[in-house]
Amino acid sequence: MATSTSNLQIDSARLWDTIHETAKFGGTKKGGVRRLTLGAEDKQVRDWFRDACEAAGCEVRVDTLGSMFALRKGRDMSKPPVGLGSHLDTQPTGGKFDGVLGTLAALEVVRALNDAGIETDAPICIVNWTNEEGSRFAPAMMASAAYVGDFTVDDILSRKDSDGISVGDALDEISYRGAIAVGSQTFSAFVELHIEQGPLLEAENKTIGVVDSGQGVLWYDGKITGFESHAGSTPMALRRDALATLSEIVLAVERNARALPNAVGTVGEAVIASPSRNVIPGEIAFTIDMRSANADTMTALDRQLREAVAEIATRRKGVDITLDLVWNKPPTHFNNDIIAAVETATRSLGYSHRRITSGAGHDACNLNTKMPAAMIFVPCKDGVSHNELEDATQADCAAGANVLLHTVLSLAGVAAS
Amino acid sequence: MATSTSNLQIDSARLWDTIHETAKFGGTKKGGVRRLTLGAEDKQVRDWFRDACEAAGCEVRVDTLGSMFALRKGRDMSKPPVGLGSHLDTQPTGGKFDGVLGTLAALEVVRALNDAGIETDAPICIVNWTNEEGSRFAPAMMASAAYVGDFTVDDILSRKDSDGISVGDALDEISYRGAIAVGSQTFSAFVELHIEQGPLLEAENKTIGVVDSGQGVLWYDGKITGFESHAGSTPMALRRDALATLSEIVLAVERNARALPNAVGTVGEAVIASPSRNVIPGEIAFTIDMRSANADTMTALDRQLREAVAEIATRRKGVDITLDLVWNKPPTHFNNDIIAAVETATRSLGYSHRRITSGAGHDACNLNTKMPAAMIFVPCKDGVSHNELEDATQADCAAGANVLLHTVLSLAGVAAS
Repeated sequence: MATSTSNLQIDSARLWDTIHETAKFGGTKKGGVRRLTLGAEDKQVRDWFRDACEAAGCEVRVDTLGSMFALRKGRDMSKPPVGLGSHLDTQPTGGKFDGVLGTLAALEVVRALNDAGIETDAPICIVNWTNEEGSRFAPAMMASAAYVGDFTVDDILSRKDSDGISVGDALDEISYRGAIAVGSQTFSAFVELHIEQGPLLEAENKTIGVVDSGQGVLWYDGKITGFESHAGSTPMALRRDALATLSEIVLAVERNARALPNAVGTVGEAVIASPSRNVIPGEIAFTIDMRSANADTMTALDRQLREAVAEIATRRKGVDITLDLVWNKPPTHFNNDIIAAVETATRSLGYSHRRITSGAGHDACNLNTKMPAAMIFVPCKDGVSHNELEDATQADCAAGANVLLHTVLSLAGVAAS
Repeated sequence: MATSTSNLQIDSARLWDTIHETAKFGGTKKGGVRRLTLGAEDKQVRDWFRDACEAAGCEVRVDTLGSMFALRKGRDMSKPPVGLGSHLDTQPTGGKFDGVLGTLAALEVVRALNDAGIETDAPICIVNWTNEEGSRFAPAMMASAAYVGDFTVDDILSRKDSDGISVGDALDEISYRGAIAVGSQTFSAFVELHIEQGPLLEAENKTIGVVDSGQGVLWYDGKITGFESHAGSTPMALRRDALATLSEIVLAVERNARALPNAVGTVGEAVIASPSRNVIPGEIAFTIDMRSANADTMTALDRQLREAVAEIATRRKGVDITLDLVWNKPPTHFNNDIIAAVETATRSLGYSHRRITSGAGHDACNLNTKMPAAMIFVPCKDGVSHNELEDATQADCAAGANVLLHTVLSLAGVAAS
């Protein structure tokens, strides 16, 4: 007997409860979450997630970069599973929804299928990708990038945080250096639910964003070397001020991104070496993040940045500026079949929706280079993310999870009994 | 029998040895010194200094802010002593000479008088002032400021470092909360030898700077509150970027100081709260240091800064900027009699010299408000200070110490036997 699935819904209250239950792992006073990848709080949420997936009947395996794969069997185990999920790590002052919604909604999809006694034709597999955020170790989305071969596993294992701890050591510290090879768990497709992290859906009062593209990302590590000297006795004309130099770069990044359509540019980190209020800053390390969904715009952003830096370095005598492009992710164009599956599921559920470009990078963008992938967005309050004030409604989270459920059902197929 | 003093010289090699012997307390790999006030390394050098002064026959007393006073008796103990000295704390990446030269040259003056068997008429008193640098606790020169009554002792004791440790607790931690009241050790005059910390003497090939004035200092604590949000998904027009805001302030400080004659302006500290490369900085704490030897110029610097900050805050919607003037030290005009004593001693020793303005603040500038004071400068290499590369020659250090010796002798008088 074929099971009817057209009216199937996830359990909105249960999903909401799991989001708030896991928010205690690294929960902050302001209601946000600080759960840096591979830290003690990340271990707590990973242990919780493993137990929950096993309780839901999944077999959980961990790859050598710590990404977690929870497989729910299908009727035809010769078929590769449909992948669904996101990540459970957060920014240093992150929120309760970024990554968490997509991972726990995937768990909720499995629970809802279990409750309804539905067997899919192909298996499905929930994923918790290691280090999506990139705030402890660079690059962001490092595990999915290694999964698709953009980096070697050894390269990623050797990356260090600001305390000099490597990814490999951090994995061992929390006992999450798993047994299966990176890339060995294959998928027929990958679908990721996420909060928008931008203002568009809320502004247009849409429930679902059918994500058809993602911005490309340029990440730079920069260093300015001037000369530390006394703030009182060094005449203005003889200064080699690293902070004044950085200030010109910050404003050039802002000015160039403003001048190009649909581009953004940010200096997110800037650390003065040995700062003191009466010492001219002599050395500063900084980072730049620039993005666009248009490849030509990305080329222009990179060229204009390099021109600005060269001009500043020439004009400010005795100040050296180095700029290393540490990540160059081209714009993403998601798979048309998966976009169509998301759109069809959304329509069948009657949710308001629009096509949308992802401003942020996501593991699904990496996966899309090797398999059909797409994403589902739901609104977040005021477009705020990477912030403790990040918020989303229970209804929107549930709507997103229902679209995820029906997209996965259409991709995996419902087993005929 | 009156002792002839006109040919008296300090022991150049002994002075040079003590400078290098104490440089090991907090010595850095690059040849500098990291000896933050009231820290473990400061205790080491204080203990060394106390032992050396006592070995030279001085009685050492410590006031309730930790400043150390080493008294060498004179013939007429009814007279207040001539004060000479400086400080032994350093910047976080400081050098071997800033403060140290003036303090150890004062010790060398006592040792030279001892060797020659010379008794002065008035007593003399070597001082090691607590926290001249101001990099651990604000304000700089806090002990001499409290000595002259610019701050109450309780206020200074309550000041905290960035770890929340108070001056009082730090004094207790190294057992240097002394018994005598701040201000109770009086002086007839105060003379401070110091490296120039600027480029003028070296450029003009002069050995001695006869310091007749000092720059006034304006110190501000600032805070910018914008809003943390996602670097990828927040459109440029909707950003409240604290670092871009700071960058405009930094460049305004630089521009305004360049435009005024003999003014300097520096943003020395800037700390982003919870920095991450893909998060727009939402909050930054920073400091500003502006100086001039001209009171009208200081007024203009303050006014132009406030105008620039107001304009930036108005133009950048949703970004709040606070600016607190935490220290306003007027320009110093040293005492003409003491300046003349320094100049006469310099001439009698045959050293090349010039009048000079101090770019940096010094304890002698504070003391000059309550007693006759002046300073002696010697060249430092490339004008570099507040830097591990800070350097000076043995010959110049000895010349400065000889000028200090003969200035003190003329102020204290040589006892008739």
